[in-house]
Formats: sequence, structure tokens, C-alpha cells
Amino acid sequence: MIIVMNRQTQEEKINKVINRLSELELECHISKGKNKIVIGVIGENKRHALEGLEALPYVEQIVPISKPFKLVSREFKEDDTQIAFGGKSSHVVKDSSLSGPVVGGNNFSLMAGPCAIENKENTLEIAQQVKQTGAQFLRGGAFKPRTSPYSFQGLGADGLKIMWEASQKTGLKIITEVMDPRQIELVSDYAHVLQIGARNMQNFELLKEAGNSNHPVLLKRGMSATIEEWLMAAEYILSKGNYKVMLCERGIRTFETATRNTLDLSAVALVKQLSHLPVIVDPSHGTGKWKLVPSMSKAALAAGADGLIIEVHSTPETALSDGSQSLTPANLEKLTNQLTELAPHFDKSFTIGSKTEEHI
Amino acid sequence: MIIVMNRQTQEEKINKVINRLSELELECHISKGKNKIVIGVIGENKRHALEGLEALPYVEQIVPISKPFKLVSREFKEDDTQIAFGGKSSHVVKDSSLSGPVVGGNNFSLMAGPCAIENKENTLEIAQQVKQTGAQFLRGGAFKPRTSPYSFQGLGADGLKIMWEASQKTGLKIITEVMDPRQIELVSDYAHVLQIGARNMQNFELLKEAGNSNHPVLLKRGMSATIEEWLMAAEYILSKGNYKVMLCERGIRTFETATRNTLDLSAVALVKQLSHLPVIVDPSHGTGKWKLVPSMSKAALAAGADGLIIEVHSTPETALSDGSQSLTPANLEKLTNQLTELAPHFDKSFTIGSKTEEHI
Amino acid sequence: MIIVMNRQTQEEKINKVINRLSELELECHISKGKNKIVIGVIGENKRHALEGLEALPYVEQIVPISKPFKLVSREFKEDDTQIAFGGKSSHVVKDSSLSGPVVGGNNFSLMAGPCAIENKENTLEIAQQVKQTGAQFLRGGAFKPRTSPYSFQGLGADGLKIMWEASQKTGLKIITEVMDPRQIELVSDYAHVLQIGARNMQNFELLKEAGNSNHPVLLKRGMSATIEEWLMAAEYILSKGNYKVMLCERGIRTFETATRNTLDLSAVALVKQLSHLPVIVDPSHGTGKWKLVPSMSKAALAAGADGLIIEVHSTPETALSDGSQSLTPANLEKLTNQLTELAPHFDKSFTIGSKTEEHI
Amino acid sequence: MIIVMNRQTQEEKINKVINRLSELELECHISKGKNKIVIGVIGENKRHALEGLEALPYVEQIVPISKPFKLVSREFKEDDTQIAFGGKSSHVVKDSSLSGPVVGGNNFSLMAGPCAIENKENTLEIAQQVKQTGAQFLRGGAFKPRTSPYSFQGLGADGLKIMWEASQKTGLKIITEVMDPRQIELVSDYAHVLQIGARNMQNFELLKEAGNSNHPVLLKRGMSATIEEWLMAAEYILSKGNYKVMLCERGIRTFETATRNTLDLSAVALVKQLSHLPVIVDPSHGTGKWKLVPSMSKAALAAGADGLIIEVHSTPETALSDGSQSLTPANLEKLTNQLTELAPHFDKSFTIGSKTEEHI
Repeated sequence: MIIVMNRQTQEEKINKVINRLSELELECHISKGKNKIVIGVIGENKRHALEGLEALPYVEQIVPISKPFKLVSREFKEDDTQIAFGGKSSHVVKDSSLSGPVVGGNNFSLMAGPCAIENKENTLEIAQQVKQTGAQFLRGGAFKPRTSPYSFQGLGADGLKIMWEASQKTGLKIITEVMDPRQIELVSDYAHVLQIGARNMQNFELLKEAGNSNHPVLLKRGMSATIEEWLMAAEYILSKGNYKVMLCERGIRTFETATRNTLDLSAVALVKQLSHLPVIVDPSHGTGKWKLVPSMSKAALAAGADGLIIEVHSTPETALSDGSQSLTPANLEKLTNQLTELAPHFDKSFTIGSKTEEHI
Repeated sequence: MIIVMNRQTQEEKINKVINRLSELELECHISKGKNKIVIGVIGENKRHALEGLEALPYVEQIVPISKPFKLVSREFKEDDTQIAFGGKSSHVVKDSSLSGPVVGGNNFSLMAGPCAIENKENTLEIAQQVKQTGAQFLRGGAFKPRTSPYSFQGLGADGLKIMWEASQKTGLKIITEVMDPRQIELVSDYAHVLQIGARNMQNFELLKEAGNSNHPVLLKRGMSATIEEWLMAAEYILSKGNYKVMLCERGIRTFETATRNTLDLSAVALVKQLSHLPVIVDPSHGTGKWKLVPSMSKAALAAGADGLIIEVHSTPETALSDGSQSLTPANLEKLTNQLTELAPHFDKSFTIGSKTEEHI
Repeated sequence: MIIVMNRQTQEEKINKVINRLSELELECHISKGKNKIVIGVIGENKRHALEGLEALPYVEQIVPISKPFKLVSREFKEDDTQIAFGGKSSHVVKDSSLSGPVVGGNNFSLMAGPCAIENKENTLEIAQQVKQTGAQFLRGGAFKPRTSPYSFQGLGADGLKIMWEASQKTGLKIITEVMDPRQIELVSDYAHVLQIGARNMQNFELLKEAGNSNHPVLLKRGMSATIEEWLMAAEYILSKGNYKVMLCERGIRTFETATRNTLDLSAVALVKQLSHLPVIVDPSHGTGKWKLVPSMSKAALAAGADGLIIEVHSTPETALSDGSQSLTPANLEKLTNQLTELAPHFDKSFTIGSKTEEHI
Repeated sequence: MIIVMNRQTQEEKINKVINRLSELELECHISKGKNKIVIGVIGENKRHALEGLEALPYVEQIVPISKPFKLVSREFKEDDTQIAFGGKSSHVVKDSSLSGPVVGGNNFSLMAGPCAIENKENTLEIAQQVKQTGAQFLRGGAFKPRTSPYSFQGLGADGLKIMWEASQKTGLKIITEVMDPRQIELVSDYAHVLQIGARNMQNFELLKEAGNSNHPVLLKRGMSATIEEWLMAAEYILSKGNYKVMLCERGIRTFETATRNTLDLSAVALVKQLSHLPVIVDPSHGTGKWKLVPSMSKAALAAGADGLIIEVHSTPETALSDGSQSLTPANLEKLTNQLTELAPHFDKSFTIGSKTEEHI
């Protein structure tokens, strides 16, 4: 951390700052330039204890130097985190004797399904369809975050049971959103992955409870979250002991209205450098337009993503939510054929593994 | 709602859309222009049931016409909502025989205090100071949303007790943040107003529980929430039966980094036209710089705000959080003197009422 | 300037950086922390020569410490710049024996008029009206920047002549936009202030020519320009010798679509601290809605602005551009009456001076 | 265009609007819903003449239905525009008997070179290097738009002559920025493509002059330009008769600061649907970090781009500008090898044609 003061600052004021640093047991180096005095602070990162110093009228600026995230960083763990789903349990990969899907490393994963679970018949139909096109995970909302209190809010527990049945019939792993710490236990009974949505990325109580859980977590980036804030949200989960975190880029909010959000693929490339965690891309929410989903899916693979989460609906025009961004199963199949062909060029393997994998 | 299609669309496809509208019991008018066919949909607002139609390749665009919010709108309730705090209870004002502070209408309210409750001594000291400068509410965080899991997370229940004691000693009403539905009961025992922070503006489970509560709620605008989304979040609370909602503009996230956020005062002016709810402005988070707080406080009054929530600390340079944006009590006093003088020019009364009000 | 490297960096690589600094005749201090090596660079600000160092794989970050602007800063000139318009000429105020309007200092100025000059009759009528309500400047576009090539592009030279005639008849000073270096000479013949629009804030060739001119310049902030970039654009003009620059905040582009732009009044308060130049606020473009113009005008005064530039049209519903954000003369009058009353509370004098000032 | 009014609006006010439409010779359909009256306007797009109607207090909203761009749209011209560079001239492709490079259609083009032209020796060296890696165009700035007036402003005419010499020696076509209408003639003497930078995207006088020129134009998207505004800027050029326009996505400005800009690849996919013009991606400015350039280049190809413009420097750490985002020739070569392999999967051919093409 660097503290910048004006060159004209009186000695006693400089000493006031230095004394405060001593109280916090921090060493410092002082360097006097032509216009500025710069104090370099050495020692543990006590960024938050120091930021109050900016209230002093003679302190111009405090500049953090170290990155605030630790456990999620490549510096902490150099190898890619891989999360293995064998049978009902999941764990961070240490050896390779696994039967279920693995997310991260050289694997390219597909999570697909409807925005919201609407009814059993329709869900089982879509599950079969996405299974056939190579998906390993069935996505679908039982608890739905909706802008309006008057919109369909999801089927809740009934929706979870429908997803579970779909999993039993197809072998697909279930990923679904959890919006409240009180839902974690129930959702964990039926789902393999807990999804934390963009609107809850900084719902810190939810992050802490997800950290206390043993379930893998897919953490979506907040609509206006910086990459640093996103990684710090993941740090909340890891710091509680749960290392099975997948990050999900789903578009950020910008001035552009022609697309629902602006899918930030450079964030994917950058996060893969900064962190060892897998990164999944959601081109459906990222663009809001199904016609853009195929191109952006391929672009995500090229940018370094570890997988995709895609909205699929057999009759998008009657979907209870997000129909305009859902692919039909036929369009999904066309896309997965292309991904299978492309993946090896990016050192990824996208196995339409479901066709051969035995059901649980 | 307006559905736009290309002029060349075949009759059978147009009929498919019209049939879907009939199924939903919606009437429509068709108007064929030179390049476009426009279908105007009449009847209840079923925006969400219809948006799936955009998935049809021959539908170009769906344009909503009505505003989605109802209970929060001026059309629903023309008069300003006023929330009265008499004794320990609060209610939406119907008559004027009240002894405690009132928020909304012609009142200009001041909520002040430290970012985080740090300890009893310091809190009581600040409470006395802000009381003397005209504040009616003591703000302070017991449960703190922090970007980093390694930062000070607040004193929790102990912090609430300290605030309660400060309220007993000064007569100030307490406003503090609630981050989790499970905290509402505890916080309600000690605080007069439940604050929902920017990061939780779309934590819908929290909004619903706040709606089930009988406590007034201060709902901060999310960092990247549109005005419409903000009003819809308030609609969640009102739709559960709790009409005691104050909105709080606290700056939005933009590309500008010279200020912590961009305080959006035009949103204040616009929301006062669209809604009957009181609007409070937070110039501390809005700018992140204490030197800008006085000007922006006065600008907020001029823009039509019903009050301010300001961070105050007796020694900002040692504050455990947000010191750089906290006013000293002396600076607050200077500001309140100016506000007292200015308020009548904006049809507001800013009574340094605490000096005369009897303690509870 | 601070150069940050990883603690593990080899000595020879550190030396490579130090040698580069020596070549540029820059001294440096090295400080080795636990995780990072920090090199503080002392001497002239050669930020741009150094930024290439970030290309070295072992340099993590380069952090600028000094502000890049000089002539526009309060450090360079402590007193407010005041620009006096006496007779046909204008100059930076040194004494107070002036007959015409002065912008900056304790003066609050009003510039008003139609978005575009449409015809002579209409312009003369509006000019008389705004004159009566206290405006000192007539604004109006002769050369119009329009998003579409098919929209009305302005009357060009004919528009300038109409404005000149209006000035002759009313004594109002003329402010109008210049979009191209080749227009400066012509516009200078008819206008007292050259306006550089938001879209041209970083049209550097235009800035340089405006710097070579002797005319006062109103420099609008770009739609997505940071405060630093805005001040640097002004620095271009001052660095060529023209110190008669007024800054104009006119709203920035954000995700919010309920208002045309987001009027950034905290930028006004901050720029008044950083710079000695006058700041004018444009609430018409800033909000895009005439109903918000009165509140935001008063808020601008409260935030520290030195004046307003407001769109006025006698029949906004038939205006050739921007009708939806134009005030009627009656609404303008109501507003100026309030401003006259409020201005002294902010140490400003808003004299409806036009009523007493003799015509030229 | 749709005009929305409140259901309670009096008949005479509705008639006022209808009369205005008649005056403009526009037909309309009126449809009265439960809460709103909607007037659908039929006929030529007179959007700008109508927008003033929003100033009427009883008009709530005006919603445009048609897209404002014409000549740039796929509806106007279904086939991809291809621009052929044969010998010294360029033209829009009509037959295939061409010897030089072609941009658009199934071609994937590479434009590479230094940010700024610094000196002859260095430029010729880089030109040879990028030629060998498959580039067909040499990019480089002679006139440089710099945020600070104190930064290196480019070599001007001398820089152009150096680029010309590089072209003579390598056969590379030259692309360089033009910042002022007065530079067009000079730049056209030395360059094959006129680049209009992000800061000048709405410098309408420059667009008009570029439209009057016979030279191909690369039009960069403005930092905060919507897709619609970007296409309308291109429309300016086409409407003057110059159809040889390439669009260039170079990142937009958002709240994210970890990357210099946010590269908006979904805009590429969308623009390829809306328009027939070729789209080039600039991953150097788009990310500001050379380490992200290779991934984002491949992602751009996957998103549907027609080519790349990349900054290359032989010693980025000493570059006079933008060193931190420049690739070394070795890294560029690695990238082009991958692109050659990938291009056919996206129906593109990336021929390292320079190796076989004869020099002019």
C-alpha cells in the first residue's frame, strides 16, 4: 500500500501518519519526490484499517498494491481446479479414477435446460433432449429471481423434485439457483450444484452458508461487479472451506441496449490468468438473444472458458420466462456438433459423454 | 404491449401470434404500415407471458407500453407518503397528532452516524453529537456487507444493543442494515428502520420478509439498478402489505473513478414524479469523498429529496470503515445550519427538532 | 509514478528497469516489501514514456501519482477564473470596470435559447423572451451534430446571421457550436463564445484551433469522458494560449435509460475543487426531460455551478430538434425567479441584469 | 412510430396530435386500451420531426419502430460487402479477378503494426515482421489522438512517408488514422485505408468528408457508442456515396477497470446480422493487455469477425505509446499459425498470402 501526500506537508503531520502505521505494526519507507511524498507500507495487507487515513486533509491518495484475493489466486494454487462428480458426491480432483463428469482442466462442460422448471412432462422432455446433445448437467430454476413480484416465481420444492426425477432418468447432474440461506439444505437434497445468481453475488450471508456447505457452487458475476469483486465473492466461499467453486460470466450491464447485457469475454481470459477456478460462460443471459448464442458459445470456448450454461426450451415462444434467449434442442445439437470439432484446437475435450456414460 | 413484425410476414404466422393472444384472453388491434405490422395488445399486463413470443423468428420486437409498477406509483396514490415515528411505533401518517419525527411530505429528515458501530463509547459520543446538529435518526452498521471476507464484519447483536442504548439516551430513532431474512426479527427488536443495502436490492427473499414485517424499510438503490427495477423492488415490499418504504439514492456505478459512485440526483427528481414514496439521499456513499458531501447534500435538497443519510465519525482517520467519506461533527453542524436556512425555499421544513423533542 | 514488480523478480530484470529510468534521466527509490518490489520514480512526469514498461512480463503495474493536468489546476492558479464580456471583446478579468456580463467567480450566468436556429422570426421571439427572464447569452445551433444524416443539420451560415441579428437587437451574447476547425473563423465573426460539443471533446485538432483562437470556449464534457480526460481536453486549449475556457457538464452515459443522460453534479463539485475554470451545467441534455430541468437547475446551483445553459422554445412540440427537453419561456421565468432568490445563499449573484443593461 | 397517451386524455388533445401528423402528411391508426391510447404512425420515417411531441404534457412516450439506418442494413443489401485492394486502387467487389487482398466475405484479414510510427528503421523492421506472419495491412499512427497535449503527437507527414516506403518494400497496404477533414487529402496520398478513430466516430464533418472520398474507411466504434449510433455514423459515409466502409469494434467503456476497455464481441455477432459491412476487431485497444490479445483474437474469429487489427512492436517496453498492449512479432506469429488452422472452421480463409503475393 502506498500513501501519497503533498510535498509541502508539515513534518508533524507526516509523523501522525507514521505513528498510525506503527500502532498497526506496519513498517514503512518514505520517499520524497519533487511534488509528492510517497510512503510505502510494508507488511500484512491491512488495507481496510488504513483507508480511513484518506480522511486526513493532507493525505491525497491511498493506492493498494497487492491483490486482495488469496485462496482463489493462481499464486496460491498454480494448477487448474477440477471438480469431479462421481456418483452422488463431488470432490476436488486429486486422481483420475472417476466415472462422472469433471469440470475444469481440459474438460469443456455443457449445462443446459429451461430457464424455469414449468412442469414435469416438459422438463423430462427437455432433459432427454439436452442429454442427447451432450449436456452433462441439467439447468433449471425452481426458485426464480424475478424483477416483478407479479411474475411467475418458480415452482419451489416441487420444481426441485421434478429436476431430481429428470436426473434419475437421464444421469444428468442438476444445477439450480439458491436465493436464500434457508433454502440451501433443501436444494442440496435435490441438486448437485448450487447456483448463486448475479443479483446475489454480494449476498454475503448466502456466500458464507454456501462456504459451509459441501456442495459445488456456481457463482455468477454480478451485473456491475468488477473482476476483483467477483473473485472476492468467491474468496468468501473458499475462506469457509468449500473449494468447489465455478465462476460464471453472464454479461455485465453497460449503456448498450441492443443486447440484454454485454458478455465480457475478456474477463474470462483474464480470470483464467488470475485464478485457478473453472469459468463457465452463460451466453443466454449474456446476450438475451438466441440468435447470438451459437457465435458467443464458440467465442467463449476460444476465450478460454471451461464450459457453457445455455437455456434450452422445446417451444421457446410459450416459455414462462426468457423464451427470447432460449435455443431449441435442434439448434443446440447443431452447436454441440461444432463445439466437439473445435474443442481440441483449444486443448479442451468436449465429449458427448452422456451417450456412453451409464446412468446412476 | 406492442408486437412488431415485418410487413412480409405470411398470414398464417400472424395468425399464430393472434391465437396465442386469444389463449391468454387478450384482445388486439392490428395495424399494417409500409414496412412493419404492429399488433397492439389490450387488456391486463401479461408482459412476462408474452415475452417468449420474441423467440419466434418473425417477431422483431416486443415493446412494453404500461409501467410495470402499481402500488408505488403516483397513479395509485397521489399524495406523498409520510411515515410517522411516534413513541416506539411507526405508521403511515393519516392525522397529524404525532410527537416523533415524520419522514416525507414537507419534512426534511436527517439520518447520521458512523458507517460501522465500533464500540459503545464512540457510538454514544457520535450519537450525542449528531443529535445536537439536528439528526432525528442514528445510522450505523451492526451487520456490515464487506467486499472482503477478511475485513471487519461488524459487531452483530452487540452492535445492535449499543445502538439501542444510544437511542435510549438521545431519543434518536435507529436505522441499521439487515442482510439476511433470518436477521429481521433480531434487528426489529433494536431498530426503528430496517435498511436494505444496495447489494441486496434484488435479494427478493429479503424483500418479501421485509414486506411481511411491520417495520419501516429504507431501500437503497442497487449499484446498477435502473429506476424501474428500484421501484419494482419497492413494489415487492408493498405487495406484501408493508407500505412504510423510503427509497434511498446512494450513487450508481459508472465509468467514472474520480468519485466512488455517481450520485444520480436526476433519479431523485424523476422518482418524486413517478412515486409517492419518500426519497432519501446518501451523499457519503454517493461520492466517497467527505469534501463533496456538503455540496451534494444541498443539491439533494434542491433536487427534491426528503432527507439525507450521512456518515459521521468523530475521528474519521481511525474509522474501521469508510473514514474517507465521513464528516466530522463540526462539519455536519456547519451543513445543518445551511440546510435549515435553505429548506423553506424548497417547501421543506428542516427542524432541528431533536433539541426540543422529549426523550422517550 | 510507482512501478510494481513481484518480490521474486531477478536482480538483472530489476536493473533493466532502473537502466531505462536512467536513460530517461529519472531518479528512483526502491522499496522491497514482503510480496512486492516497489520502485518510486522521482522527477518530471514522463508517464507516457514509461507506460511501455508494463509490456515487460515481470512488471505488474504502473501507478501514476501526480495529476496530469497543469494549467487548468487550482495548484497552478488559485483564484477562480472570470471571463468578462465587455462590448464586443472578452478577456480574463483583472479589474472590475466592466460593463458586460462576467462568467465565473461570484456570478451565476444564464445561457438560454433554442436547440437549433430554425428561422429568423422564431429566433428573435425566443431571444426577447429569454432576455426578459434574465439570460445574458443566447444559445442556439447553426451547425448541428445529428446522429442521423437524414435529420435536420442546421442552417449553417444563415443561422449565424440570424443569431447575430438577435444579439444586435437584445444585447445578448451569442454562444453556438463549432464542429470543424474550418468553421472557427466564420463562427467567430458572429458568436461571442465557441461551443465544443460532447461528441467533439476529444477532437484534438478542433481543440488546438480553439486554443489558437482569441474567443472564449465552452467545452462540454464527453458522454463517457472521465473528469481527468475532460480537464486534459481543456488543457489542450490553455496550452495553446487561450485561457478563456468554461467547462460544461451535460450528463454522462450510463446504463439508466429513464433519463437521456445521467447529470453528474458531483463532477461539478469536484471540478470546482480541482480547477479554477468556471463550470456551466446543461440540465436540458443532462436529463432529456423538461419536467426535470427546474429541479436540476437549482441542484446545479447548490452543487457549485457558475451558470446554466438551458434549451428554451416557444412551442416545444413543433421544435425541429430536442423539443422534449425544452422549457417554455413561462417555465423559464418561473425558474429564474427562484434562482434569483436562491443564489445569494450560495454566494452567487444572479442579476436579471439584462433588464437594466444598455444594449450595445 | 408509436405515440402513447394516457386513456384519460381529452378528445381535443388527441386531435391536436392527429392534426400535427396530418400536417406532416402522415397517416395514423388509433387504438384505445384499458389504460393507454396508442397512436400508430404510418408512412415515411419522420422520427425527428415528431420527437418534439414528447414536450406535450399529455404525451407519455414516443416509441420508434423502424430502424433508422438504411444503406448499411442487410435489408438494403443482403450479401456481404467485400472490399478489394488490387494494385493501388480499391473497389467494392463485383467479380473475383483480383490480385490484392480482399476484406469481407469469406476472407479473414490481418492488419498489424506499431501504435505510432516512431522512426523509419523501426517501422521497416516491424513491417517485414508482420508481413512474414501473414498481415496484409500495415497499421500505424502518423497523426495520434493523445489524451494529453504533452504526449508524443505523432510524426505527421513524415510518418506517412515512412509508411509509404514500408508499403513499397513489402507490398503491405497502409491503414492510418485521419483526425481532421483537412488531413484527408494528404493521408489519401500515402494510405490505402483511412482510419476514423473512436474519439471521432461522431465527428460528423469528418464522416462527411470521408464519404466524399474514394478511399476505403475503417470506422472505429466510439467508446460509449451504441450499436445503432455506430451504424448511423457509417450511414453518414455511405449516404455521401462511399460504400467502402469497414466497421471496427475496439472495446467500449464500462465500469470495469481491470481491462482498458470491455471488448464487445456480441456486438460483432449482432452487427453481422444487421449489416452487410465487414467488421474488424481490435483486441489491443479492446483489452489494453497484450497477454489477452491471443485469446480475444481467436474469440473474435469465432464471434464472426472479418479480421483483426493488432498492435505489434519489436520492443514494446520502449514504445512511445501503448507498449503494454503490443504483441512481439514472435507472439504474433504463434497467433497467426493458430488462426490459419482455425479459420476454415468458421468458413473463413486466412491465407498467409503475403508470402506468395507479388509486390506492387
